[in-house]
Amino acid sequence: MATGVKVYGPPDSTAVTRVLACLLEKDVEFQVISFNMFKGEHKNPDYLKIQPFGQVPAFEDENITLFESRAICRYVCEKHADKGNRGLYGTNPLVKASIDQWLEVEGHNFNPPSSSLIYQLVLAPMMKIEQDQEQIKQNEDKLAKVLDVYDKWLGDNQFLAGDEFSLADLSHLPNTQYLVGAAEKAELFTSRKNVARWWGEISNRDSWKRATDYMQNSA
Amino acid sequence: MATGVKVYGPPDSTAVTRVLACLLEKDVEFQVISFNMFKGEHKNPDYLKIQPFGQVPAFEDENITLFESRAICRYVCEKHADKGNRGLYGTNPLVKASIDQWLEVEGHNFNPPSSSLIYQLVLAPMMKIEQDQEQIKQNEDKLAKVLDVYDKWLGDNQFLAGDEFSLADLSHLPNTQYLVGAAEKAELFTSRKNVARWWGEISNRDSWKRATDYMQNSA
Ligand SMILES: N[C@@H](CCC(=O)N[C@@H](CS)C(=O)NCC(=O)O)C(=O)O
Ligand SMILES: N[C@@H](CCC(=O)N[C@@H](CS)C(=O)NCC(=O)O)C(=O)O
Repeated sequence: MATGVKVYGPPDSTAVTRVLACLLEKDVEFQVISFNMFKGEHKNPDYLKIQPFGQVPAFEDENITLFESRAICRYVCEKHADKGNRGLYGTNPLVKASIDQWLEVEGHNFNPPSSSLIYQLVLAPMMKIEQDQEQIKQNEDKLAKVLDVYDKWLGDNQFLAGDEFSLADLSHLPNTQYLVGAAEKAELFTSRKNVARWWGEISNRDSWKRATDYMQNSA
Repeated sequence: MATGVKVYGPPDSTAVTRVLACLLEKDVEFQVISFNMFKGEHKNPDYLKIQPFGQVPAFEDENITLFESRAICRYVCEKHADKGNRGLYGTNPLVKASIDQWLEVEGHNFNPPSSSLIYQLVLAPMMKIEQDQEQIKQNEDKLAKVLDVYDKWLGDNQFLAGDEFSLADLSHLPNTQYLVGAAEKAELFTSRKNVARWWGEISNRDSWKRATDYMQNSA
């Protein structure tokens, strides 16, 4: 019988993969309850009871039902503080504040342009929707500006929130994986020395390799 | 001499007001270091040292420099757990997770369309920039859909994260204040019974009245 916490949504959906990467890093057992978003199954009344906006992922353990990937990650880290990577969400309040800061940057500055690019460059062709070249150009410019700031920052810091890999770095993995892979936008990362070094380090973690297996075997 | 933690940025800027509302609710002394964003002072090299993306707010106390309004609010609540409103960020892990969840919803679902509307309906006319009617229509539709979900949720819950006012509710105050005021979009809120009841309750708090004094005297 499948055991562990439940994650609802297809593992190749970036916000779902974010949660899987966190669970793998924390050594928390889980089961994925996937469904077909192309058939609109995330808008089914039963699913809307646990995620009223009809988005993925949603999460369930014996105590709580939650949605919003970054809120789920925070909860998993707090609840399982002593499991797996203990420093993932910091072990002192100042580091934790810095992780929260960069998790917000990821959510507000990195995610919007990178998600738009993934939609235009990967999903639109898959769904035979015409690409919007203006959108692609605008979002690539936006993302480039964000990555310029990251490059400078990562020249002074090994990871976003300091000396240790954290939830803030982890949260960038799913979108970046698509951008350097299927979206063929690797040079946005490889052309920036410190960003390239950082991406190399964070994407080589064992937990991320295992997460990408879930992504690839999602279909 | 002015004392307390430092908040950088004009108090009528929504992300700055969010932090002020939190500090007022937590009874934490602060000083505002305002500057003129119309003159681009948020892109000055000295400011970029504390906020590398050149946005407001930034925050400083004796231990740390931080940016990102929601990360600052979390830090203030954690550090001053026993001051002012003790329940603002929850007092048990399950409530905290629910506050984090709704804080993410505010940041990802509510903030983008509401910020766009404020820009188009309030800032663009002020800066003599032509309004984009298509943007206004699209973002109003998006926000209406989000508020439909809120209305249903707030029919079953007094506040977003349960029975108590929290950081999740507070985080909606600055944008909503502009929308019901200068943007003349009050009916988005008043036409929805439970949203109207919720807005009435959260905007009547003493801390919010004091925050709006800062907003109004910002010029
Ligand atoms: N802020 C949410 C975003 C979730 C999200 O955008 N999920 C996408 C897939 S990656 C989705 O469900 N899209 C379908 C829709 O919005 O209808 C989170 O991080 O959980
Ligand atoms: N996610 C950031 C957003 C900050 C933000 O968007 N600030 C606006 C004013 S409300 C700003 O600085 N705009 C100027 C700019 O982006 O150049 C936060 O919550 O602190």
